[in-house]
Amino acid sequence: MLHHYEAPVEDLLFTMREVAGLHDVLALPAFDMCDEALVQAVLEQAARFASDALAPLNRSGDREGARLDGAEVRMPAGFQAAYASYVEAGWGGLAADPEYGGQGLPRLLWTAVQEMWKAANLGFSALPQLTLGAVEALMAHADEALRQRFLPRLVSGHWTGAMALTEPQAGSDLSAIGALATPHADGSWRLVGQKCFITYADHDLAENVVTLVLARTPGAPAGVKGLTLFLVPKWLVDDDGRLGARNDVRYHSLEHKLGFHAGPTGILNFGDAGGAVAYRVGALHNGLPAMFVMMNDARFSVGLEGVGLADRAWQQARAYAHERVQGRSAGSPASVPIVQHPDVRRMLLTMKALTEAMRAFAAVLASARDLGSAHPDAGECARQQRQVDFLTPVFKGWCTETGVVVANLGIQVHGGMGVVEETGAAQYLRDARAATLYEGTTGIQAADFVGRKLARDQGQAAHAVLAQMRDTVDVLGGIAAPAFATLQRDLRRAVEALANATDSALAQHARQPAAALAVSVPLLELWGTVIGGWLLAHGACRAHALRQDPSRPQRYGAAFLDAKVATARFYGAHLLSRATGLADIVCEGAAACLDDAATL
Amino acid sequence: MLHHYEAPVEDLLFTMREVAGLHDVLALPAFDMCDEALVQAVLEQAARFASDALAPLNRSGDREGARLDGAEVRMPAGFQAAYASYVEAGWGGLAADPEYGGQGLPRLLWTAVQEMWKAANLGFSALPQLTLGAVEALMAHADEALRQRFLPRLVSGHWTGAMALTEPQAGSDLSAIGALATPHADGSWRLVGQKCFITYADHDLAENVVTLVLARTPGAPAGVKGLTLFLVPKWLVDDDGRLGARNDVRYHSLEHKLGFHAGPTGILNFGDAGGAVAYRVGALHNGLPAMFVMMNDARFSVGLEGVGLADRAWQQARAYAHERVQGRSAGSPASVPIVQHPDVRRMLLTMKALTEAMRAFAAVLASARDLGSAHPDAGECARQQRQVDFLTPVFKGWCTETGVVVANLGIQVHGGMGVVEETGAAQYLRDARAATLYEGTTGIQAADFVGRKLARDQGQAAHAVLAQMRDTVDVLGGIAAPAFATLQRDLRRAVEALANATDSALAQHARQPAAALAVSVPLLELWGTVIGGWLLAHGACRAHALRQDPSRPQRYGAAFLDAKVATARFYGAHLLSRATGLADIVCEGAAACLDDAATL
Repeated sequence: MLHHYEAPVEDLLFTMREVAGLHDVLALPAFDMCDEALVQAVLEQAARFASDALAPLNRSGDREGARLDGAEVRMPAGFQAAYASYVEAGWGGLAADPEYGGQGLPRLLWTAVQEMWKAANLGFSALPQLTLGAVEALMAHADEALRQRFLPRLVSGHWTGAMALTEPQAGSDLSAIGALATPHADGSWRLVGQKCFITYADHDLAENVVTLVLARTPGAPAGVKGLTLFLVPKWLVDDDGRLGARNDVRYHSLEHKLGFHAGPTGILNFGDAGGAVAYRVGALHNGLPAMFVMMNDARFSVGLEGVGLADRAWQQARAYAHERVQGRSAGSPASVPIVQHPDVRRMLLTMKALTEAMRAFAAVLASARDLGSAHPDAGECARQQRQVDFLTPVFKGWCTETGVVVANLGIQVHGGMGVVEETGAAQYLRDARAATLYEGTTGIQAADFVGRKLARDQGQAAHAVLAQMRDTVDVLGGIAAPAFATLQRDLRRAVEALANATDSALAQHARQPAAALAVSVPLLELWGTVIGGWLLAHGACRAHALRQDPSRPQRYGAAFLDAKVATARFYGAHLLSRATGLADIVCEGAAACLDDAATL
Repeated sequence: MLHHYEAPVEDLLFTMREVAGLHDVLALPAFDMCDEALVQAVLEQAARFASDALAPLNRSGDREGARLDGAEVRMPAGFQAAYASYVEAGWGGLAADPEYGGQGLPRLLWTAVQEMWKAANLGFSALPQLTLGAVEALMAHADEALRQRFLPRLVSGHWTGAMALTEPQAGSDLSAIGALATPHADGSWRLVGQKCFITYADHDLAENVVTLVLARTPGAPAGVKGLTLFLVPKWLVDDDGRLGARNDVRYHSLEHKLGFHAGPTGILNFGDAGGAVAYRVGALHNGLPAMFVMMNDARFSVGLEGVGLADRAWQQARAYAHERVQGRSAGSPASVPIVQHPDVRRMLLTMKALTEAMRAFAAVLASARDLGSAHPDAGECARQQRQVDFLTPVFKGWCTETGVVVANLGIQVHGGMGVVEETGAAQYLRDARAATLYEGTTGIQAADFVGRKLARDQGQAAHAVLAQMRDTVDVLGGIAAPAFATLQRDLRRAVEALANATDSALAQHARQPAAALAVSVPLLELWGTVIGGWLLAHGACRAHALRQDPSRPQRYGAAFLDAKVATARFYGAHLLSRATGLADIVCEGAAACLDDAATL
């Protein structure tokens, strides 16, 4: 049972319904065709696919890895059959526009499903994620001819997507991009350049790969304002959608990475034989905003890697802790399963509480994305979208860092077996580790958060979230059960520390931007930590209400609801306790960081 | 320069002299033959050996790994020559008893040297560490005949040591050990059984391997009180010390580990051909106390792995941050080395501050070990030894956990390159990860700390350390420079939080031991964090005094001394800030952890 994955369907449904407003999302006209019964049915089918088709390939995919055979990528055994089933079942089009063959279901549902793919098999999961990102970017910026030619096959999953931004000299700083596209007589372009850290730009699971590439054009302005977005197919596609010749784009090499072995990542060469055929996506010199549609989706999805891997690590650690008999507990003469030892409980509850908190954050953000794109009221759309913009860097940064923390604890629960690769726990740490780097490091997320998301509206979006947190503090105060008194105290203390730290960061940013940047990651961690506690507390209030009211439908088990309260209380005592210390760093730590005497 | 290792000789000397009382150690009669000039000369020679002989084999050793060839372990290329130089230079006998060929130098010095071996090449470093541990156990418990037969060749390094405690069903709980030794007519014993997670019990670097083994004897009492310690050589040794037949002890298999690839670890079989020849070490049924001599030394040395790997990770991250040009800093038109970005500074200073804090902790503990074993006054010996006993689990637990934290940050500084194995940063995390598990997990250290070290003397040893911390708070208050005012505030707050948490843990332990265990790891982390800040603050006071007084010898550079102050201040603002939150967990977190409603 150690390597089994069982999707957390009950907790996903609880979180979507009770914390993330599934009802409000389903009430949107765009989702007329969807109801709660369909949501539950999709989750249950996805859970089976994740457990039965994807999870069994996770360790073998890690061991075998993707490899370069000449210039072609060969995927690990079993991935072809799994991907074929994935396409056949129509999973790829779940959240895509029905006009291009998608099912148009809410992102809130797609997010829950994507968590399962991440947890079951991270290496596999990046392929549908990149494809949906490419679909979104093309939907937002490509002209109709390009959409008609590429979208239906991408939505169905017969073709897949990739994105290519980074170059050796242009990582966090895209202004240094040097790849060059020149116009061709037939209206297409020819692209020459080298990109690095490019994932799934070639593989043998689908008929074609469509890579979106940021490049310069002749005479374009310097910096990011001279970048244009291009579409480069692996195989050329004629006007009727038939595949033609192999395009001039190939992997030069694949990286030997710490984790994520099943996913191919490497250096991608464009134009070794003269120039890759490329099609412009959107307006000239508007590449960065166009690419950011895909990038923001990717940031959300990479944040989900933290959630999924944390859940998988927690499931395995829990199974091991029930199985492994070692040591006596106080007062017991015989050896006991280690789950009975208080410190093992502490580790497991930390893993569980952080995982459920991240899951709730993902659901709330996904729900805001649905409301922000599909609400009939334009003002509400804009309000939700501001919340999405504000929270996305926190979600990406905090969930990926927390994924590493949880996977690390998972190893610890296994004792010495934790570092034996066959156990499987180490793979989750290796797989989780890259997520804090790709699609913008945690430092880049924090700089975006403090410099743009927080400062640009002078903290308005921040205070809107803080007000919602204070509402939850008030609701907690109205519940008489003893767990809620300590949870209220813990959450109130944390929220007030967060409010102070946020105001302090704003003031520092106005006075000395470098000071705000020096404490930006602690501020991001603080926001993530308190959001997690707030949403678990909100869920605990709902769980308590459902438990008390005999007239409510008995959707959830009594032990499940009691555990939601207990987990929130644990989060309050063991995780929210970090908040005041993080706030102290934000308020007082910049000077020590920028002190010239601290030589490096 | 990225993979170069440069031993921190200046900081080691500063720490030994100004923080750890090198003068007092050298004043002991046992170290008559040693003076500061010798200490410095040894450090400089060791630094060269670490950089030139060991560091270049670190990545190749990781890639190649130790492997099993039939039943014999083959070490990676280059290790034989490096070990031969090590033996020839006499490094093995540095701290060993001169009666058996050692040089009898202080542990304080050996600790600094061992940090270098750990940093330069973790895989190599375990071999001298295990050998010295075996020497200590034999010195303390073996009879004179056994000592004469085995110690001189172990001290010289021509033979090496290993220890074998763990069995599949007996990990943290040694009472379940089943290996059986039966007496033989010639006075020796025959040992049969299987041990797991055994390191360096076979290899091709030395002429013989001596493994110390815990086993039962016929009719022995159940549990740990029925265990006896045995010595099992790989090659039999006759009375004149000549090697004879191959003994009946062999690796069954080696583990495929996350890190520490160059060091062989695996399942060791005794007696597959009838019984391994074994010699009893110490009294019957006194095996556990005898083995604990080796185990306590191993705990200290594994703690040093955290220090060494943190330093190595920090050195590489710093080099990369100076080399890698990316992004603009505020107000600068051109791209800059990333070391200029505030968040990169924060990460590097966190790595540096934690590394120097751990180094100071190691030196203070090593100094107390010297004083505790060699002070002419028996009362002072006992006082120092109590401090050693009290601090060892904190040192082992905190430094190994912190080593993981620092190595993880090292990856982060490298951005996407951090997870590319050729970069080298990922190896430090992989290598650091096992240290929180071996020789007792962090949870086992914390249980020992709270249940034995803290509770047995009702907090007396704890309060002795707290009093020293408060003395430092007072000294800080007497220094007018502004950095000291914030440092004093940060340290005072942390020390008082620590005092409260310690008293709370004692009270909980008296009332409900499980509650104290539930918060024992946060308590251990709190102790480690505050000790680190205290010792850096103490060093900052010394640095300030040396900087101010023109009549003092100019041993250290001005920038070095200023950086000691700045680093301590940074630690105060960014690391000591964790103390109040950890104390809150200790004081208030047990109930949430033990709550039955929190189902697992």
